[in-house]
Amino acid sequence: MINGHGDDIYQYGEIRCNFSSNISPLIDTGPLRQHLAERLTLINHYPEPDAYSLEVLIAAKHGISSNEVLVTSGATDAIYLIAQTLRDERTFAVKRPTFSEYADACRMYGYEEAPKAASKREQSDACISYAEHEQALTKFKGGAVRWLCNPNNPTGELLTTDTIKVLSRRHHWLIIDQSYEDYTWAPLLSAQHAIDMQNVIVIHSMTKRYAIPGLRLGYIIAPSAVIDRLRANYRPWAVNALAIEAGHWLMEHEEPYYREEMRMLLAQTQYLRDRLRGIFGIHVYPTSTNFMLCSIQPLGHRTLARQECTAAELKEYLLAHHGFLIRDASNFEGLKDCHFRIATQLPEFNDELVEAIKTFVYKVKRDA
Amino acid sequence: MINGHGDDIYQYGEIRCNFSSNISPLIDTGPLRQHLAERLTLINHYPEPDAYSLEVLIAAKHGISSNEVLVTSGATDAIYLIAQTLRDERTFAVKRPTFSEYADACRMYGYEEAPKAASKREQSDACISYAEHEQALTKFKGGAVRWLCNPNNPTGELLTTDTIKVLSRRHHWLIIDQSYEDYTWAPLLSAQHAIDMQNVIVIHSMTKRYAIPGLRLGYIIAPSAVIDRLRANYRPWAVNALAIEAGHWLMEHEEPYYREEMRMLLAQTQYLRDRLRGIFGIHVYPTSTNFMLCSIQPLGHRTLARQECTAAELKEYLLAHHGFLIRDASNFEGLKDCHFRIATQLPEFNDELVEAIKTFVYKVKRDA
Repeated sequence: MINGHGDDIYQYGEIRCNFSSNISPLIDTGPLRQHLAERLTLINHYPEPDAYSLEVLIAAKHGISSNEVLVTSGATDAIYLIAQTLRDERTFAVKRPTFSEYADACRMYGYEEAPKAASKREQSDACISYAEHEQALTKFKGGAVRWLCNPNNPTGELLTTDTIKVLSRRHHWLIIDQSYEDYTWAPLLSAQHAIDMQNVIVIHSMTKRYAIPGLRLGYIIAPSAVIDRLRANYRPWAVNALAIEAGHWLMEHEEPYYREEMRMLLAQTQYLRDRLRGIFGIHVYPTSTNFMLCSIQPLGHRTLARQECTAAELKEYLLAHHGFLIRDASNFEGLKDCHFRIATQLPEFNDELVEAIKTFVYKVKRDA
Repeated sequence: MINGHGDDIYQYGEIRCNFSSNISPLIDTGPLRQHLAERLTLINHYPEPDAYSLEVLIAAKHGISSNEVLVTSGATDAIYLIAQTLRDERTFAVKRPTFSEYADACRMYGYEEAPKAASKREQSDACISYAEHEQALTKFKGGAVRWLCNPNNPTGELLTTDTIKVLSRRHHWLIIDQSYEDYTWAPLLSAQHAIDMQNVIVIHSMTKRYAIPGLRLGYIIAPSAVIDRLRANYRPWAVNALAIEAGHWLMEHEEPYYREEMRMLLAQTQYLRDRLRGIFGIHVYPTSTNFMLCSIQPLGHRTLARQECTAAELKEYLLAHHGFLIRDASNFEGLKDCHFRIATQLPEFNDELVEAIKTFVYKVKRDA
């Protein structure tokens, strides 16, 4: 279902800095683009019907068999394929706020949502600590197909592998979207570990990792019997020829610069978070990755988060005065008008963003 | 479902000429590739979630409203989306041989095939005249969702708009795949005409028309209420950023060279067909487009089409001795081991192909 998503940069033409995109600004896609420019005649022929050649390389990287991998046209395509394939399960569960496509895909295929067992605390506020979050999740019951985003979008929260083990025993299927796996240092489920659990399906995005969301490239890792079921539901030629070529190139060229850049990005994220927290009237949620959820907070008995002062208003202000695009997060189910998401960008822009938000908040306070 | 398709060039590495591809060899994608090479930074950003900007241009070209158009990731993606959206209809009908994805997509979504009412003549032989074909089709009953490929793959046959009108009254839904519409001079259903019929959905391929199957780009035209239903079942970001960009470019640059090249290609097709028909032991079916279905025919009481002499064998011979790839058509339901498909290529290759097939057939005859 198509409505209100994140990276809506295409609507705005030229902007100076895109804080709405969760993708690292430090990754240089120049060498990959150069490679694709030399291979553009690939568009003149059909791609492989099933991107098998790339599945072999991905399997080798993870130390698993190629029949435990299915390449898809981005992670979103994977979400819809999984929802379609498991539709006889009929019920699903998600913990909100999270990426909206899990629920959208399940509703599209006729699932019903499992009764919510969330605590009052959880219902009243998206801002809960990791510990509380994990506790709430393990109490959560019902739902044959349980979806997780780990690290979670838009909060940046991370579940431990212990929690994941507990959850996998509570549901027929546990689907883990690890799209942001390369934007955290925290240990995540390995491919083999996930396969051994039998009822776990892991979604990976090559879009996020390599900063190429325009190409559409992702993959699923699961036990081979599950991959067989998914493949039987998958259309041919789903992955375009340039995406497959990019996948090949990236499998051969991925490592040299990556870890150092990620270290810088995550260090910069902590710096940005600390500075944003220093603004009176802005709340910043904890994060394990390169983006963070924020909210415009009540200010005494008057609130900054009244109708006239929303994330949408802040977004508009930043666009008009600085050419900055942030993610108005109010359309995530479970969030409110006051929520927005910031992804770390280059240091000079991060500093300017902090000053700009400060100016906005002080202006609102003065006008109030 | 992914198994045995046409353009399997990716398996063979370098070949001299690809007769298995239905796409014109005369279309020069150079200017488009040049344009994309200059726009490769598009891969660094998400595409529009719904390719709306391209839908506006396509609608203008056809003189219809943009809410009567849905851009998809190729025609095959459109087929699966339509099958998914109409799945409550529960029965489908196709006339074979035809593109296998219609039946595959319907089976995937739990449809049953309507009882076949084809004549004995039709059951016994794929080689029937247009008149017989149309007659058989209008007799054909049942099946809530009726799929047509027009012109048809692999036969090159074409149905008249009168026949289409009759068919539209016999089924709840008539889905017409016009992927090869630009490879024929025969009049086809216009966009407005299709929309006015209310229960007709037309699939278009930009892949075939512009020789860019590697990019994955197609679209659906239908009444706006139908497009709304399809859109509600469609995943976001389905069409990659370079495909959308190519669509924009092609809408602005399509006309100058196209008609003259197509005239040459279709004239060359008639020449090639006449020459192939001149080979004793090869039958060539009538065609209205740039490709044709052929079969290796019985030769007196001994047949060329015995187990040792199949289309697969001819394919292997042509690959080994000439670097030519043809389409072994035996995996189209309704066809046999003796069937193959040829798409017209450049004149020098066409002539060499005729001589090569002649040599193969005479060798078999001599050995028999």
